[in-house]
Amino acid sequence: MRQAGRSLPEYRALRQGVAMLDACMRADLIIEITLQPVRRYGVDAAILFSDIVLPLKALGFDLDIVPGVGPVIAEPITDSAAVAAIPTFDAARVDFVAEAVAGLVSELGSTPLIGFAGAPYTLASYLIEGGPSKEHAKTKALMHGAPDVWRALMERLAVISAEFLRVQVEAGAAAVQLFDSWAGGLSPHDYRTHVLPHSAAVFADIADLGVPRIHFGVATGELLADMSTAGVEVMGVDWRVPLDRAVDRVQPGQALQGNLDSTLVFAPWDVIESETLRVLEAGRLAPGHIFNLGHGVLPDTDPDVLARLVDFIHSQESPVEG
Amino acid sequence: MRQAGRSLPEYRALRQGVAMLDACMRADLIIEITLQPVRRYGVDAAILFSDIVLPLKALGFDLDIVPGVGPVIAEPITDSAAVAAIPTFDAARVDFVAEAVAGLVSELGSTPLIGFAGAPYTLASYLIEGGPSKEHAKTKALMHGAPDVWRALMERLAVISAEFLRVQVEAGAAAVQLFDSWAGGLSPHDYRTHVLPHSAAVFADIADLGVPRIHFGVATGELLADMSTAGVEVMGVDWRVPLDRAVDRVQPGQALQGNLDSTLVFAPWDVIESETLRVLEAGRLAPGHIFNLGHGVLPDTDPDVLARLVDFIHSQESPVEG
Repeated sequence: MRQAGRSLPEYRALRQGVAMLDACMRADLIIEITLQPVRRYGVDAAILFSDIVLPLKALGFDLDIVPGVGPVIAEPITDSAAVAAIPTFDAARVDFVAEAVAGLVSELGSTPLIGFAGAPYTLASYLIEGGPSKEHAKTKALMHGAPDVWRALMERLAVISAEFLRVQVEAGAAAVQLFDSWAGGLSPHDYRTHVLPHSAAVFADIADLGVPRIHFGVATGELLADMSTAGVEVMGVDWRVPLDRAVDRVQPGQALQGNLDSTLVFAPWDVIESETLRVLEAGRLAPGHIFNLGHGVLPDTDPDVLARLVDFIHSQESPVEG
Repeated sequence: MRQAGRSLPEYRALRQGVAMLDACMRADLIIEITLQPVRRYGVDAAILFSDIVLPLKALGFDLDIVPGVGPVIAEPITDSAAVAAIPTFDAARVDFVAEAVAGLVSELGSTPLIGFAGAPYTLASYLIEGGPSKEHAKTKALMHGAPDVWRALMERLAVISAEFLRVQVEAGAAAVQLFDSWAGGLSPHDYRTHVLPHSAAVFADIADLGVPRIHFGVATGELLADMSTAGVEVMGVDWRVPLDRAVDRVQPGQALQGNLDSTLVFAPWDVIESETLRVLEAGRLAPGHIFNLGHGVLPDTDPDVLARLVDFIHSQESPVEG
């Protein structure tokens, strides 16, 4: 469950007075925050506490996460000079991540840790827009209007994403998730032409590591078929797409991850249970199914409801993982 | 093209010092603003200048549109008493719309006017959330947690939507569009169970009027099949779903409307042209195709680019409408 911390009082206590990216750059906090939902819920895997823009920040890029806004970039990228000025990856700059992963793996024991990185498109959208955006008009304008600049930018970001994942796996992460938050705003043609090759480059780059690769984006129903060709073992599916439809769109043999609507935790338990059973039922059509929420945990979520949900999943006899 | 005004200097001049809902409640402004893009672009149809929450405001509901925020509701709906307090529809309260439509029809001559209303779900989401929302968590919580309250609310809103469209058609609108902005955030199961019956009630209510009924929502790829059963002649399709996919999801015989990515107007002309041709090509598979943007016009759009786009569409020999 991504962003599970947001709903935990112990997370909020820990983050008191600590900025988001500062928390993501301290090994002790990464470890503690990553462990909190595992302790609380007994989920079957942990996902590294981090942020999509963290590697850029760690490499020296001038950006910040403004509470209530999101990532804000001091000098948005508009041309090839700005692309050339993006720092190259240097594992020494993210040594706190390697340290945190190593610490986590020893704390977690048999519970696997999933590594995490943002996909090139989502990173590019922040760098070009200068911050969060609804329409990504500037991003798409650069993509169409300056394809050479676009390609250079995406190639650079793909290396950063891949190398950031490599650091995590080499330190002990058992799987990776590449998260493309905003890809769902692209038409399939734009995605296929301008984005997919670069996501595929990330996965190809880390293929030698031999860990399962998970790919996910929100509102990507129309892109699932293309995304699933990027070189992945597991496709994450948001709540909009029933898993029995998703299974027909992804590559044969791929497992699915998802996809209970994150807002359903506010419904009465009988609704949560019946919707969970519907997700499990649909997921049985896939060669493998990792149950989770179809998006991040919402901040107002009652941790007790999530605990009950995890217990319920574990009580089901079918060969699903919680 | 919905929201075309936002990009027009003549629209911004007219709106100077006039609040959005005030503009929507003055027949002279409705007429002028509706005509502006028709004059400027020579499009083949006009769409009534209005707002989704306008009928609620006109009926006396305490709400406002806050610039940069969206609709804000003084007392969000939480229970059946609040539902019962929603004013019932009274055509006399929207006589300015009837007056504007009549005036428009006479000004427009052979150019048809499309009427406009928000769908019950989108109206309900504003009333329950108290304003715009990304997750619609309160809306879904009420839907699942208090299904009787939900049903009563949706039934009331369906009557308001239908009667608001009826006023427009009886005054001369040649077609109607029911706009469900936020339905795309629902899982197909929730949509089918809790929303579709009420949208279908709107369309059934106005079936006797005999005008083409258009239905549209954003990010509704997974819902197209269900939405198309609501009793409509035309399905609007956002830019995420290629029209050659959409045609397989909607009911046989239904026309499609859409769906060039609204951000493509910022691309070089050769990209706009090739993407437009792609949309036209895919649209030829439908029994009818009304070309437009796959979402509203973005405020920064260059009106000259839209003018060129309309001319380009008109220059195409195929049996499409612009």
